[in-house]
Amino acid sequence: MVKIAFDVMGGDLGYQEMVKGAVMANNQDIEIILVGDENLLKNELEKYDDMKNISIVHASQLIGMDEEPATAYKEKRDASITVATRLVKDGLADAVISSGSTGAQMTAGIFVLGRIKNIKRPAIATYYPTANGIKILLDAGATPDCDKENLHQFSLMASIFGISFLKMDNPTVGLLNIGSEDKKGSILYKDAFKLLKEDSKLNFYGNIEGRDVPKGIVDIVVCDGFVGNIVLKLMEGLSSVLLNQIKENITSKIIYKIGGLLSKGAFRNIKAQLDYTEYGGAPLLGLKGISMISHGSSDAKTMMNAIFAAKRAVESKFNEELIKYFEGV
Amino acid sequence: MVKIAFDVMGGDLGYQEMVKGAVMANNQDIEIILVGDENLLKNELEKYDDMKNISIVHASQLIGMDEEPATAYKEKRDASITVATRLVKDGLADAVISSGSTGAQMTAGIFVLGRIKNIKRPAIATYYPTANGIKILLDAGATPDCDKENLHQFSLMASIFGISFLKMDNPTVGLLNIGSEDKKGSILYKDAFKLLKEDSKLNFYGNIEGRDVPKGIVDIVVCDGFVGNIVLKLMEGLSSVLLNQIKENITSKIIYKIGGLLSKGAFRNIKAQLDYTEYGGAPLLGLKGISMISHGSSDAKTMMNAIFAAKRAVESKFNEELIKYFEGV
Repeated sequence: MVKIAFDVMGGDLGYQEMVKGAVMANNQDIEIILVGDENLLKNELEKYDDMKNISIVHASQLIGMDEEPATAYKEKRDASITVATRLVKDGLADAVISSGSTGAQMTAGIFVLGRIKNIKRPAIATYYPTANGIKILLDAGATPDCDKENLHQFSLMASIFGISFLKMDNPTVGLLNIGSEDKKGSILYKDAFKLLKEDSKLNFYGNIEGRDVPKGIVDIVVCDGFVGNIVLKLMEGLSSVLLNQIKENITSKIIYKIGGLLSKGAFRNIKAQLDYTEYGGAPLLGLKGISMISHGSSDAKTMMNAIFAAKRAVESKFNEELIKYFEGV
Repeated sequence: MVKIAFDVMGGDLGYQEMVKGAVMANNQDIEIILVGDENLLKNELEKYDDMKNISIVHASQLIGMDEEPATAYKEKRDASITVATRLVKDGLADAVISSGSTGAQMTAGIFVLGRIKNIKRPAIATYYPTANGIKILLDAGATPDCDKENLHQFSLMASIFGISFLKMDNPTVGLLNIGSEDKKGSILYKDAFKLLKEDSKLNFYGNIEGRDVPKGIVDIVVCDGFVGNIVLKLMEGLSSVLLNQIKENITSKIIYKIGGLLSKGAFRNIKAQLDYTEYGGAPLLGLKGISMISHGSSDAKTMMNAIFAAKRAVESKFNEELIKYFEGV
């Protein structure tokens, strides 16, 4: 049975919501290990009936969103994210998930699990809905300062991940740039372009522009962690601003309201198409173990989906493929 | 009377559409100088009636979207964008506008007009609609490789521009970053943060995230030209993808369709709120003369608005303010 270590002390909505997510995912052929304050979690679990397959591992500390990750890691050896990641390292869990501090999760990943041989830097690979199906964007913020080799390795890692986990067939890779022409870009992106173009193992599409990201014209969008983080948060923010504008306009006149009620189902579809909670977790690629990052604002349903996503990630064996590829290089 | 030099040979829709835009802006207390192939333009203008205040200056060459700007500038001394920019340099026009190659317009701006003393690099300042009114974002692509001093100068230039041109009152400046906390970011952005924070002349808000851009929580969003270009094209692309999704969903069932018809007016409002054609042109800040860039796909109405925007830009005297500020430093 797949075993998931779940750091329940992170996340904006508190451990109660996280535990609820674990309970929702229960009885699904998954063993869930809740990591956090044992007393709190025991009391919380008593509220529910059927707790088979859910266990608790105690961690006395937690790392907050505002703490400097490397310092916090050193000073809080018993932090929930560190304890949960150690379960993976020790073979007691197959993957770790958390909606706590991304920096803390990454630091624990690098120091506890370690990087895959020959991988210079890890990347967060998010998958997101587009007009053309689910696509991958990386790096979403693990490595804000990249060099061209980082961007090259991200492309290779995402290709392997896309094939194993999302069942993509020969996924196309686009380099996110300020123009589609070959010679466009900053110095970094001009250099990276050459490297990607030369690598015959990649199905390199070429440069793509900002407007191509939501259109989904490539399977994998590659960029540095600074750009990727801004792009993802912008898509999230703009969708929500637009949906609010629609709501405000539709409720501004009685006739619009009636129209809005009749077409409510259509908007439910649109909202579902934009619903990031269906996805759950983004893996940190490049580590010797699976660590999946969830949004800080994740609710129980999102964490249930994150648990399912982690299970699928384990079963897809994408990380074995990554290790085989890079250690064999 | 304000005189606008209009390079009509650039733009995706052809000179006919550009001339139409000029005709639409005619009789508005503006002198419009069309720059391009004299024979073509004369024939085109003959289609219209009242041509007072529109004149033609001949340019025998044009620079295409795919040409390398610096090379094209050197090899095509009689290119329309160069000739139009020279009219500003020689005092024969107050501003130049174009929807041709941005790189070519910038190169002409730097070589013909020259940079304002003490300005290291120019920036394209776009203004865009948000949930909270019109806001400024720069750099939209003039300087893809920035250093911290560039970002500092962009902040100062945009503040002066915002006050003079958009009548902003003590505009807030946000640094676009991967977290709102003070110490977040890539090396460049961490360094820039310190510089902006130290400058008491700026109304510095601090770091903002991608999701804050469409919300409009600051008056001025500062970032390098690589990030800014991607952000703007992403906003454009995502709005259009979302509006298409709405259309598709609403037409998928007859009941939704009826609802959609009743609430049509609401969607017209939303589209108008997202209509970038109302704005027209983005100035290239940092030059000893006004050069305003329009979108390559601009139609006649957009170019009419670009002419009006250029007139307002001249009358606002923002560039005199910039020159006074930086030459006095």
